[in-house]
Parts: sequence; C-alpha cells; structure tokens
Amino acid sequence: MLDDLPQGFRASSAKAGFKAKDRYDLGLLISDADCVFAGLFTQNRFCAAPVLVCREILASGQPVRAVVANSGQANACTGDQGMRNVHDCQKLIGDNFGIAETSVVPLSTGVIGAQLKMDCFRAALPELVNNLGSRDAEGFTRAFMTTDAFPKFASRDLALAKGTVRLTVMAKGAGMICPNMATMLCVCLTDAAIAQNVWQGMFARAVEQTFNRVSVDGDTSTNDTIVGLANGRANVSLETAEDLAVFEEALTDILRKVSHMLVKDGEGASKVMHIVVHGARDTLQAEKVARAVGRSQLVKTAIYGGDGNWGRIITAVGYSGADYEPEKVSLSLCGIQRFRQGQPVNDDLEEELAERLKAEDIAVDIDLGDGPGCYRHEASDLGHEYVSLNADYRS
Amino acid sequence: MLDDLPQGFRASSAKAGFKAKDRYDLGLLISDADCVFAGLFTQNRFCAAPVLVCREILASGQPVRAVVANSGQANACTGDQGMRNVHDCQKLIGDNFGIAETSVVPLSTGVIGAQLKMDCFRAALPELVNNLGSRDAEGFTRAFMTTDAFPKFASRDLALAKGTVRLTVMAKGAGMICPNMATMLCVCLTDAAIAQNVWQGMFARAVEQTFNRVSVDGDTSTNDTIVGLANGRANVSLETAEDLAVFEEALTDILRKVSHMLVKDGEGASKVMHIVVHGARDTLQAEKVARAVGRSQLVKTAIYGGDGNWGRIITAVGYSGADYEPEKVSLSLCGIQRFRQGQPVNDDLEEELAERLKAEDIAVDIDLGDGPGCYRHEASDLGHEYVSLNADYRS
Repeated sequence: MLDDLPQGFRASSAKAGFKAKDRYDLGLLISDADCVFAGLFTQNRFCAAPVLVCREILASGQPVRAVVANSGQANACTGDQGMRNVHDCQKLIGDNFGIAETSVVPLSTGVIGAQLKMDCFRAALPELVNNLGSRDAEGFTRAFMTTDAFPKFASRDLALAKGTVRLTVMAKGAGMICPNMATMLCVCLTDAAIAQNVWQGMFARAVEQTFNRVSVDGDTSTNDTIVGLANGRANVSLETAEDLAVFEEALTDILRKVSHMLVKDGEGASKVMHIVVHGARDTLQAEKVARAVGRSQLVKTAIYGGDGNWGRIITAVGYSGADYEPEKVSLSLCGIQRFRQGQPVNDDLEEELAERLKAEDIAVDIDLGDGPGCYRHEASDLGHEYVSLNADYRS
Repeated sequence: MLDDLPQGFRASSAKAGFKAKDRYDLGLLISDADCVFAGLFTQNRFCAAPVLVCREILASGQPVRAVVANSGQANACTGDQGMRNVHDCQKLIGDNFGIAETSVVPLSTGVIGAQLKMDCFRAALPELVNNLGSRDAEGFTRAFMTTDAFPKFASRDLALAKGTVRLTVMAKGAGMICPNMATMLCVCLTDAAIAQNVWQGMFARAVEQTFNRVSVDGDTSTNDTIVGLANGRANVSLETAEDLAVFEEALTDILRKVSHMLVKDGEGASKVMHIVVHGARDTLQAEKVARAVGRSQLVKTAIYGGDGNWGRIITAVGYSGADYEPEKVSLSLCGIQRFRQGQPVNDDLEEELAERLKAEDIAVDIDLGDGPGCYRHEASDLGHEYVSLNADYRS
C-alpha cells in the first residue's frame, strides 16, 4: 500500500453492496484542515443530484473537508428523492466524521434513474469509519470504479522555492466531454495553499487542455465531475508567478497522464487515436475536425480492425462542419501520407501501413493547409468489447 | 423474375470483378425515351466524382437516358484521375448503348480513396450489353449492394384520372443523412410525365420526410445520392393539383418503405428504434433531441442488448443542445412510461419492459411538455455485427 496522498489527507473505503456484493463501492477522502475547492461539471442539462450539490458548494465559496464517492447508482434523473438522498449522505458523513455536512463533496456513478440505496449507505458507515487511515490513492480509486479495467491515479511531488508540495489525482471512467455510463469522476488533491479564484482558473485551463480533449463514445454523462481540493498542509503558499506557472504545468501534465489512462481504458478500447489537426483557419475549425474524426463510428471500427481505410477519416472531415478548402487537405496515418491536397498518394505503402496499424497508439495527422489553427484530441477505438460491456451493463 | 420497372425502362447487370469475383457489381438502367431528372446529394464536402457529375447534370437541366452504378470502389477522394474515370464511364456507356454520354447518370459505392478499376469496367461492357432487356428491379438492385443483407426495392402502380403510372424505387445502403461506407444510393423511376421543377420539388419534400429521417451510424457518406428519372412513357401527364398530390403521397410512401428497409438492414442492425419527440417548442428542437437519441452509441447498445436502461436516453436528451425545460420532460419506452416530469416512474414494470424490448421494433416516445413541435426519426441499434462488418470491410 502506497503512501501517496498529499499531507493531511486520509482515505477510506467500504463494501456497501450498492450493486454487487463483496466489492468496495463506497470511498471517502477526508482532510484534517479546510480545503479550498475547485470544480468543473457536466454540460448535460439533466445533471445528477450530487452535481447540483457540488455546484452549490462551489458557488458558496466555502471550504470543504471531504469527498464521498459511490458506484452502483448515479443518482441522476431521480427527482426530489434523489436530492433528499444526497443531502442525507452529506449529513451522515458529517455526523460520523465530525465535520460540517456542507463541507462534504458528493460524487456518484452507476445506473441513471435508480435511487441511491440509502440502506446500503447507512449500513456501510461503521466500516467506512473503521477503515479510515489509509493514505493510499488506489484504495479510494477502486471504490468508484464501474466498468474500468484498471484504477487510474497518479501522484507527483513538486519542489518549489519555499518547499515541496504534492499533487494526487484519482479518476474513474472515460473522457470528460463525451462519456456517459462511463461517467468521468476525478478528484485532484494537493497540500499546497492557493487562493480559490486562482485554483479554479488554473483548474479550468488544465481541464480544457486534457480531459476536454479525450472522447470514447461521444455521450456526455449526467454525472461528469472533476473537483480539486487544496488543504495548504505543506505550508507552501502558491503566490509568485513562477511557482504558479510551475504548479499549473505540473497539474496539466498529471491530468493529461490520467486522462490518457481514461481513453486507454475507454470501455473495452484496444487502441488510442492521437488526432492532430493543423493548418486550420482557427482553433475552432481544427477542433470541429478533430472531434468529428474522433467520434466517427466508422473510423473507430476501422482502427479497431487495423484497417487503413483512410477514406473514412476524410469522410468525417467532410461532414465535420468545419470551414476549409477540401482541395488543400492532406492526411497521414501512422506517419504515412495517404491523401495530399485532394489526391490519394502512396498506395504502394498499404502493407507497411497495415503493419503500423497493429500498434496500440495510432497517429492521425490532418493538415487543412489553410492557416495557423491546430487542435489535439485523443479517442478510443470501437470494438466488440464496447458492445459487450454496454449491451449488458445493468445485468 | 418480376416485370416491375415502369414502361420504357430496361435493366442490365454484369460481373465486372471490381472487388470480388463472380458477383454482379455493375448495373445499368436505360430508358427508351428522354427522362426528366431530379436529384439530391450528400452534404459531405468531399463529395465523390460521380456526385460532382450528377450535380452538373442536374444544374444543366438537360434530360437523361441512363443510370450506371457500380460497387467495389466509391470513386471518392480520387482527385483528377477520379474525374477522368467517371467521364470515361459515361462515354463508354454512351458509345455502347447509342446515347449521349452526358445523359448517363453515374453512381458509385465501395471503398473511398481507391481509383475505379477501369479495366474491369471495360471488360464487363459486352456482358452488360448482352444482358440488357430484363425489366426486373431486383437484378439492378443487387448490382450495387455492398454490405447490404438484402436487396431493397419497391414498386407501385398508381391509378390517376388519365391512366395508370408506375413508381419503382431501388436502393442500397443505410440512411441518407448519416451513412458512410454504407453509402446510400437510390434510384426512383416513373413513367409519368412531369415538369422538371415540379419533379425536383416533390422529390426534395419526399426525401426530407423519409430518407433524411433515418440513421445508422451518424456518418455522412461522400457518395450519398438519390435520383429520380421520369420518362413519360405511360402517356399520363401530372398536371392537376389532385394528380400531383396523389402522386407525391405515393412517392413519399414508397420512399418511406424503402428507407425503413435501409435502417432495418443498417450494417448488422437487429432492431429499429422508432423515436418520436413531441411537445417541443418547435420542430427544430424536436429534431435535435430525436437525432441525439438516435445517434447515441450507449442508447443503441442498450437497445441491442434488450436493456431498459432509459437513463441513457434521457442523457442524450440532456446533451442534445435542444431548448426545453428538463423538469417537464417525460419518456416512454415500448409504451411504458419510465420518467415523468423529472421523476422516475413505474420501476415495478421493469420486467414487463424487458419482455417488450425483445421485439424488433422499439418505440421511444419523448414528450418535452413545452409546445407543439414534433419530429419522427428511425435509427438502428448497435451490435457485434456492426463492429464485425466495419472492422474488416476492406479485407
């Protein structure tokens, strides 16, 4: 068991039996000091009860002390009862751990439309109290896994002028803009001290560069949440421009690492497409193209099958809605150019391309030949495992 | 062999060997009189060479005499050589059948980015000439099938005041707005006489009500084409408002029938979702919701698996981008209401719902509770067969 949480944070988990018996499905992170809170949430209009509560906490500007997460039920589309349940969870955690109920950040993932099993939650509390003390990121991460094939976490120490701080990220699911059942939940902890508005701004920029640029299936969950808690226990205050820049770079880097894990594990994914669009009129046009390619079922299945069917990629560029000149577009797949300014090229390299497509990481390079705009996006492939996982998720 | 083409039309097909040996992959329809031409084409910006030529024919306003269709190569993303090849095809058909090359409407489907195998085309011409004479819609339809599991065609006689006319529709692929490799090609023939602008307008309205409302995978092909040829050989001219209305209704109806076949066969589809969105502020909001639900990978896999996971449908409503009040939304699946104005209902009917979800046709009814707008959309499910078909299409 690793000791990889930042100072002042402890973890716990319990087997509540929300869905399956005998697996950890309830997790808790608690700080021994108040934490400055940052958060980013799903754009879905049916957001889950815990997301509504998280948004209220963020709007209040008040510090937080704990994160409680469950799998099994997403507590989304659950109406008034769902809101009562999430408030009860906050109160139960507050009472059992001696903190204010409003300082408890709730996260849920699982089946949408099902009410949270409060009897399971209540019954698991003694175990949750008893297990408190671990400082191991993996234990908490495992408690909110659903279809995840592996736990996703990373930790990093950062030497700044005034001392060392730690960043720890724990996540589940796949993607931020686009997942659904694979709700993306992510908790980022640090023992650095940082002002709330600075922490939130830094967080938003880092997420835009990382989690917002990965996709698995194009479905945006009701529950997607990423929260940041900074408790200041390292006694290192982030104030100078240099420290802030170093910290933000490390935050972006660690979130990129974890978001890459999400795509890698994207509901049965076997390969990751690294889509780079450049030469666009502006960033937005590049983004439209990258997202259309990353979302195309036909591109994803071709990549899964190791089929160098590049015409499907150009087809997605064609319906992306982006503004560009078709006759200036070029495409390389795995480093081999197959389409140059409207004409197919290198037909004789098909065998070499087929060989390169056996790799797990597939480079897709699209040059719109039209300007300075560029965008990078990672997307999973689409194979039999995705269908199997999602056709019988609830059973 | 049926005699189901309208008067004055004959069909032929040949085994050109564009992709596989020993299957019909080149088809021809020829009229013994000039035809008034109508057409609608893909919105993809990389449209195939034959699509560019069809657009030119439509813009010229000139009559046409023949349709030539091939599978194997789509002749899309093929640059200058692709344009030369399609013009050569028109000339070869013109020369061999004694008609003007500009009166030959070309259609192609198959792998994108591959040049049309002109040697195969040339070698097949004697067989194509020799086989001319059939008046059987199925023969032509089989010649442009790719992954289609069955040929899609329908024919109907229509008794009008001045006599009887026939409508025959032959199609391949899946969907109009959304398919890709499953390029949608559709030919509609009639022996009625009709003015060009009237024919084109009627055609556009009928397609909007039918082919534009089905989807399989959300990918819009480079080659999607639907053309209408009216040769007037029944000596019945459509002029009165009543005749035009009867004819347009029949056209819409037969196109609906054939477009339904496309979804049914949607690349390994086992089920069809009939999505009806009503109570929307306007038609556009209803359409946004219907398309988001019909396109969701998670909804499609749940339907495939017979899983009544209605939360995924609400999730798609939530990210559809449509304008509505979430707390007014209700949802029924297979006639069972599961979500009413923001609250889950009828949890006890899950078993009954699971039973109903075993059907091939799945009713999805979404009430936005907000106005008079409604939209109907059909979409296929997503299963292992889709992945298998598309992961190794080219091999």
